[in-house]
Amino acid sequence: MKFCSLCGHSVRQQIPENDNRQRFVCQQCGEIHYQNPKNVVGTIPMWEDQIILCRRAIEPRQGLWTLPAGFLELNETSAQGAYRETLEEAGTDVEIGSLFSIVNIAHIGQIHWFYLANMPSASFSPVTSESLEVRLFRESEIPWNELAFLTVKLTLEHFFADQKKQAITFDQVMPTYLLNINPTQRSAV
Amino acid sequence: MKFCSLCGHSVRQQIPENDNRQRFVCQQCGEIHYQNPKNVVGTIPMWEDQIILCRRAIEPRQGLWTLPAGFLELNETSAQGAYRETLEEAGTDVEIGSLFSIVNIAHIGQIHWFYLANMPSASFSPVTSESLEVRLFRESEIPWNELAFLTVKLTLEHFFADQKKQAITFDQVMPTYLLNINPTQRSAV
Repeated sequence: MKFCSLCGHSVRQQIPENDNRQRFVCQQCGEIHYQNPKNVVGTIPMWEDQIILCRRAIEPRQGLWTLPAGFLELNETSAQGAYRETLEEAGTDVEIGSLFSIVNIAHIGQIHWFYLANMPSASFSPVTSESLEVRLFRESEIPWNELAFLTVKLTLEHFFADQKKQAITFDQVMPTYLLNINPTQRSAV
Repeated sequence: MKFCSLCGHSVRQQIPENDNRQRFVCQQCGEIHYQNPKNVVGTIPMWEDQIILCRRAIEPRQGLWTLPAGFLELNETSAQGAYRETLEEAGTDVEIGSLFSIVNIAHIGQIHWFYLANMPSASFSPVTSESLEVRLFRESEIPWNELAFLTVKLTLEHFFADQKKQAITFDQVMPTYLLNINPTQRSAV
C-alpha cells in the first residue's frame, strides 16, 4: 500500500495515537487503513461414501486438488459463501450442514472454514471455469500427495478419522475442529 | 474507495473479466481491490458464577456494556486475538477455551466470535483505555437494556440458557452456536 484510497495522497506506516501497531496512515487526510485477515469458506460435499474434490484451474496451486472453497464476500454469511463457492467450483447444489473445521493460518492472514454438505444427488459439473476436473472420491482414492492446501489435508484427515469411528451425517450436532497452521509447516502438502 | 492504493490513480466500480461482482478496479494499473468481511473476536470471561462485561469508552455505542472483543489483526489466530482484546479491554489475563458462538452480520460485513475463557483469579482492571468501567456480573445483574451489540445479547442469552441446563466449563468439548443477524433485526439491542 502506497497511496490513500480516499484522497490519493501518499501513506506512511506509523503507529496512530491510542494504538500500538504500525498502520498505513494518510499523510494528507489522516485516514488509517486497517488490514485484517480474510475468511476462505468451503464445503466437504458428501455423496454416499464419497466426497467431491476439484482440480484447480487457476493459481495458486493450479492442477492440484482441493475442496471447493473461496474468499467470503461482503453481504453473505459464511454458510452462504460456502454454498456459492461449491456451486461455482464444483457445479453442485448442496445443503449446508455442520461447520466441520476452522483453520487459522495467521502468517498469511487467512482463516479457512469447511462445512459438511449434503449432495441430494450425485449431480455435479465435471469441469467448471475454476476447476479442470471435478470428481467423487472414496477415501482410498484421495490424492493425498496432490492436494492444493494443507488446510484441506488436515480437514480431510479429521473427516476420515471421524468416519472410521461412526458414520458422519452432514447435519449432525458436533464440535467444530479449531486448528492452526504455523509458518514452520509447509503451506502446501 | 476512490483511488488505487498501489499507484494512486482513480478506481471505478466494474465487473472484472471472469468475475460476477462489482469491484473497485484501477483505471491505470488494473489492480482489483477486493473487499471482504472482517472478524471481531472476543471472550466470555468466567469467574465462578460471574462473567466480565466492559462499559465502552469509545464509539460506536460509547457508554454501553459489551463482552471484551475487537477486530482480529494480521499475524494472530482467532484465539490469540480474543485473548489480546480481553487483556486490552478488561485487563484480565484469561485462558482461552471452547469457541462458544460465531455470529454472522452479513449486511455490515462482520463476523463476531466469542470464546469461553477462564479467569484464574478475580483479577481485572476496573478501568482501561477502552473501557469506562469493567466489572463482574451475575446473570441477575446483566444490564440487558444497556448492551452495546446484538451479537453480545444473543451470545449471553445462549450462555445463560446453557448454564441453566448444566454447569459450563470453559474448556468443555461443545458445538459452537452458529448464528446470523439480519438487516431487519436492530444491530443494537
